[in-house]
Parts: sequence; C-alpha cells; structure tokens
Amino acid sequence: KAARKVAVLPGDGIGPEVMKEALKVLKRTAELFPKCAMTFEHGNIGGAGFDAHGEHFPAVTKALCERSDAILFGSVGGPVQEQHMPKWKDCEKNSLLGLRKAFDLAVNVRPAKVYPTLAHCSPLRSELLKDGVDMVIIRELLGGIYFGEHTTEGDSAKDVCTYTVAQIRRPLEFAFQAAKGRKGKLTVVDKANVLDTSRLWRKVATEMAKDHPEVTMDFMYVDNAAMQLIKAPASFDVICTENMFGDILSDAASVLPGSLGLMPSASLGSKLYLYEPSGGSAPDIAGKGVANPAAQILCGAMMLRYSFGEEAAAAAIEAAVDQAILSGVLTGDIAPPGTKSVSTSVFGDAVVAAM
Amino acid sequence: KAARKVAVLPGDGIGPEVMKEALKVLKRTAELFPKCAMTFEHGNIGGAGFDAHGEHFPAVTKALCERSDAILFGSVGGPVQEQHMPKWKDCEKNSLLGLRKAFDLAVNVRPAKVYPTLAHCSPLRSELLKDGVDMVIIRELLGGIYFGEHTTEGDSAKDVCTYTVAQIRRPLEFAFQAAKGRKGKLTVVDKANVLDTSRLWRKVATEMAKDHPEVTMDFMYVDNAAMQLIKAPASFDVICTENMFGDILSDAASVLPGSLGLMPSASLGSKLYLYEPSGGSAPDIAGKGVANPAAQILCGAMMLRYSFGEEAAAAAIEAAVDQAILSGVLTGDIAPPGTKSVSTSVFGDAVVAAM
Ligand SMILES: CC(C)[C@H](C(=O)O)[C@@H](O)C(=O)O
Ligand SMILES: CC(C)[C@H](C(=O)O)[C@@H](O)C(=O)O
Repeated sequence: KAARKVAVLPGDGIGPEVMKEALKVLKRTAELFPKCAMTFEHGNIGGAGFDAHGEHFPAVTKALCERSDAILFGSVGGPVQEQHMPKWKDCEKNSLLGLRKAFDLAVNVRPAKVYPTLAHCSPLRSELLKDGVDMVIIRELLGGIYFGEHTTEGDSAKDVCTYTVAQIRRPLEFAFQAAKGRKGKLTVVDKANVLDTSRLWRKVATEMAKDHPEVTMDFMYVDNAAMQLIKAPASFDVICTENMFGDILSDAASVLPGSLGLMPSASLGSKLYLYEPSGGSAPDIAGKGVANPAAQILCGAMMLRYSFGEEAAAAAIEAAVDQAILSGVLTGDIAPPGTKSVSTSVFGDAVVAAM
Repeated sequence: KAARKVAVLPGDGIGPEVMKEALKVLKRTAELFPKCAMTFEHGNIGGAGFDAHGEHFPAVTKALCERSDAILFGSVGGPVQEQHMPKWKDCEKNSLLGLRKAFDLAVNVRPAKVYPTLAHCSPLRSELLKDGVDMVIIRELLGGIYFGEHTTEGDSAKDVCTYTVAQIRRPLEFAFQAAKGRKGKLTVVDKANVLDTSRLWRKVATEMAKDHPEVTMDFMYVDNAAMQLIKAPASFDVICTENMFGDILSDAASVLPGSLGLMPSASLGSKLYLYEPSGGSAPDIAGKGVANPAAQILCGAMMLRYSFGEEAAAAAIEAAVDQAILSGVLTGDIAPPGTKSVSTSVFGDAVVAAM
C-alpha cells in the first residue's frame, strides 16, 4: 500500500512547536507499525499563509490539501492587541471556514475527557468528576446560521439559519455510530421550543433512532445543556447538535479537562478529514517551548483511526500519551502548582519513549 | 402615595410554595418601611393557567398584569414525562414569551454571585472562586432568532435572526448604567466573526461607549465566553448580549452559585417589570416544603429596587437573606452534606426574623 499523504498545516503561535512533536510521534508510529507509512508535506495557513502568500487560506495550501489523504492542522490567529492588522483580521474565520467549505467538512467530532490523574487541573470540583467525565461532542459544521444569508441594511442586520434533512442526517448518522461504540447514549441538543430548524432536527433524529434501537436517545434544550455540562458532566456520553450550539458547547466542554492543550478534534469531509487541537494558537506562550503538545499528538492518533483505519497504531499513541501523563511528565498547564514541569519537546520525547 | 399593585403569578411546581415565603418577607418589609405599601393580587399562569382557563397565559392574567405596577412571577412547567400532555406542551414558551411580548420586556437582568459561605455548593473549585464571583448578565429579550420568521417547507427549515440599532441600544444602555454602579467593566458577547447582527452590536456598542468613558468595555466571542464563565468566572462584571447567547450564558452562569434556588432575575419592560427566580418549577421536589425560596425572596428585593425605587427596603431584604445563609439556615440544596437542612418556610421565617 502506498504511503498516505498528510498535509501538515502548523499555522501560527504554538502551532509549529506542538506540530513538531506530533510529527515526531507519527514518525515513530510508522516505524513500529509499518502499515502506517506516511509522507508529510508542509503548507502555510492563517497568519503564516498571509505572510507567505497574502492570504489566510492560500491557493497553494488548498492544492496541497487536495492532493493529500488527510490534513493535520495546528492553530491560527494572532495576539488580541494585533487583531486590527491585515495579517490577523478575520484570520481564524478565513482559515477555518475556508477549509471547511473547500473540503465539505460537515461533521466535527470533539472528545472531552477528564484524565483521572489530572482531575486537579479541571475547573470543576473532584466530586463531579469521580464518575468519569468522558463525552464526545458531534457538531454539524457546514450549515445553520454560519452559512445562511448575512445582510446589513441601514439600521438593521439579519442572519439566516437554515437546515435541510440531508444536512441534519450527516452528523446524526455519525453520532449514532459513535454512541454504539461507547456507552450507547445520545443527547441531541437544540432549542425546539423556539426554532423551526430545531424541530426539524428532532423529527429527523426521532426517525433515525428507529434504525438504532441499541442507542438511547434523548433531547435537551441548549440552555439546559450548558448547565448540565457544568453541573453533571459525567451524565453525557455522545452529544450531537447544530453548528452554533456546537461551537458554544464544545468550547465549554473543552475547558473541563483542565487544559485546552489536551483534546484533539476531527472534522470529517466527504473526501478527506482535518484534525485540529481544540485549543487556539496561544500567542502569549508561543516560541517558549512550554506549550502542551498532547492535543496535537492525539490529533495524529485520531487521523490514524478515522482517516487510515489504523486502530492499533492510534490506540498505541493514545496509550503512550496516557502513560506519559500518568508517569508525571507534565507541561506547565497541567503540572500541579509547585511541581516541576517539562518542555514541549520533553513531553513529545516521553510519548515516543512510551510507545 | 398609593400602595403599589403587584401581580403575583406563582405558577407551577415549587412556584406557589416559594412565592408564599416571598410574600411573607414583602409584607414584613412593608411594615418596616411604610413607604413600601403594596397590594398583592394573584393570577394563574403556566399549567395553573391552563387548568383554570384552558391557556398558559390566560387573558384574565394579562388583564391583571395590565392593571399592576409589577409582576412577581414564580415558575412554570411540568414533569419531563408529562411534556406531551396539553397542560404542559409549550407551557414555558407560551407563558414566558407571551408575557415578554405583551409587556415589551426587552431587557433581562440576571445576577450570578457565589456566596463565599456557600462556596462548597458551587460546581467550581474554590481556587476559582476566591476572588469573588459576582457578575450580572444583561440579555436582550425581544429580538434575535426568537422573534424572527420561522418557516418549515418540505425538507428544510429556516429561522431568521434580526436586530435593529434601537433594539440593540436598549439592553446596552442598561448595561452601561449597571457597570457604572459596579466595577465599571462591560463585556459585550457576540459572534462578530460570523454574524452580521453581531457586527451591528459591535458598532452600536462602540458608539455608545464614547458616552460612557467611565466604563471599560471589551468584546468577547460567545464560544470564548462559555469557556471563561467556567475557567475564570471572577473576571466578569457586567455581560451584555443578544437573546439566544444570553439564554445559554445566563443559564450556564446560574449554576455557578451552586443552586438554582439562589438567584433572582428581572425583565424590564416599557411600562412594568417582571421578576422571576432563575431556577425552574422543579416538579420533582414540589409540594414537599424543601425548595429554596431565596431566589423568589430576592425577586421581591429586585422589585422594590427597580420598580419602586425603594433601595433601602431592597437592601434590607438582601441583607436578611445573606444573614440567614451566613447563620447556617440552609435548605437542602445548599446545606453541606451530612448537616441538617431547614424547610422552605423556616428559611422564610429566618429572613423575616433577620430583617
Ligand atoms: C473561527 C470561528 C469561525 C470558528 C467557529 O465558530 O466555527 C471557531 O470558533 C471554531 O469553533 O472552530
Ligand atoms: C422557555 C424558553 C422559551 C425561555 C427562553 O429561551 O427564553 C427560557 O429558557 C428562559 O430563558 O426564560
């Protein structure tokens, strides 16, 4: 089998340094699992794309992705104080919405899991975590109010949220399958007491549930879901929701593990998938070698699983990350106060060593 | 001055029992502060409205509110398992959206404050609370995707979000004033990287900020706000946002104090205001005399302050609630595990005694 082609887009801020560790781990994985041969080609995106080609999502980067089998994305965006500069203005939006649209990335998959050894990092009290917080949020990524008509006329503005049955089925289909491989519980989040699109989501989900009798499905209003994520995070297994609610809830969930540097995410398209850490470019700590590369490394594992079907290799990376953390190799974001923390590359080395 | 007329709408679930305590406290307040004379007239709303008049928001209830100076609202809605029954179907929506529309309740004000003595109740670790969590969320309540066009045609559905400059100014005006009376910090939450309505909010807020130089205003994306509410709740003072984001964020914030029974809210109209606890009707504990009446009692204080301008009386109620809590008079929702808790009416009595 030919080596898989991976488009590597490190981007801005801590992107390049955490990407370096992810590639280190993936190269080691390919040595241990010869079926996992990969080639890596680098491209520019975000502020780096702007510097190199005057655009956040340059045509050459798009072309690179088109000839690849998967996209490994770092992070994009600049410091708060520099947002007005052309380099950073609309950087995240142009990069991410550009990629989503270009590659039909309609389904976003984001786990949120509190590592028991890292419970002290979570903003939540340990009592709430003792039953194990381990959920996956499936977010529709190409519909809703993001891609509807946006208009401003004189003193008023308008944004349109639309969904079709076909758009709704795609994330739900993935969510039902995901629930089957997990605890069998699916929570569909909406605002069906107010929105027609939400009522259509309920109708489609109710019909699809008949084909998945193994899955226990329930509905929850988005305001309640925002409360339960904080009050009772252990009660969730798989959550599926529309684009805007998913944006809010998956970010809320991403702080539960205690560091944004811990959780990967995948965006699934019709031809290829994109993998991205859930944290941002963190310009304040960029270049210092202190960022946590775990999320980016776990993106590599997700890529092996979802894009290349290499479950054993994916599991090996995940186990190695777990082991590094368990053995106390911790970057500053997750090290208990007063203890010594390791650098980005030392964490990467520990994962490689644990494999 | 003539006695103020208060429309009392206890509603369903725990509504009637917590309302009883609020009225007990208000009557005591009127004895202590003779300027605060009030008359109370009861009306039916929600499931109770449906039982009495076949509608969740009966015309007689509307008429009662029309001849009143303020509305003291309890809570509405039935048990999850009975949602399909006509009595409960769309009960919250019909009651609340009905009242908001009828009385032009455009600005919702909801505090979220963690009582230092009750820090053990918060889902957040105490380190995050030590700087004092004390914020107010101002939510636009009559615009956005709630009241835009909703359509379903064949296989697709649509909801429209609109805002005009005038609609945006109303909550912001209140928010700037609120910030002045507090720490002087206003965070306007939006999704300006995606939505035209959000960009209009930013434009209006930026212009208004020039008239309020004492207030430090910043903008935050809603996804980030959902994270910061959990990670850094002490960093907020006043938050102002549009209807749907406000629905989600104010519910998220309402769990931070540790019990939904602690926080009141006000909805400000052009002629009169409505006061409502942030928790729901809690049918599971209704009728048992265990519900926490603090939020409903504090609604009374908010009413005295905002509707009747009786700051001293309002502050007296708030101080009495604080004192009851400080002295360890705690209902089951906030009593430390293993300690004895008091009933709804004992808490009410303690507040009356503390006044
Ligand atoms: C940058 C922005 C447009 C994007 C979104 O809202 O989808 C981001 O917040 C995300 O979640 O990936
Ligand atoms: C019942 C519902 C329509 C309402 C809303 O979404 O506004 C409720 O959640 C609230 O926040 O008061």
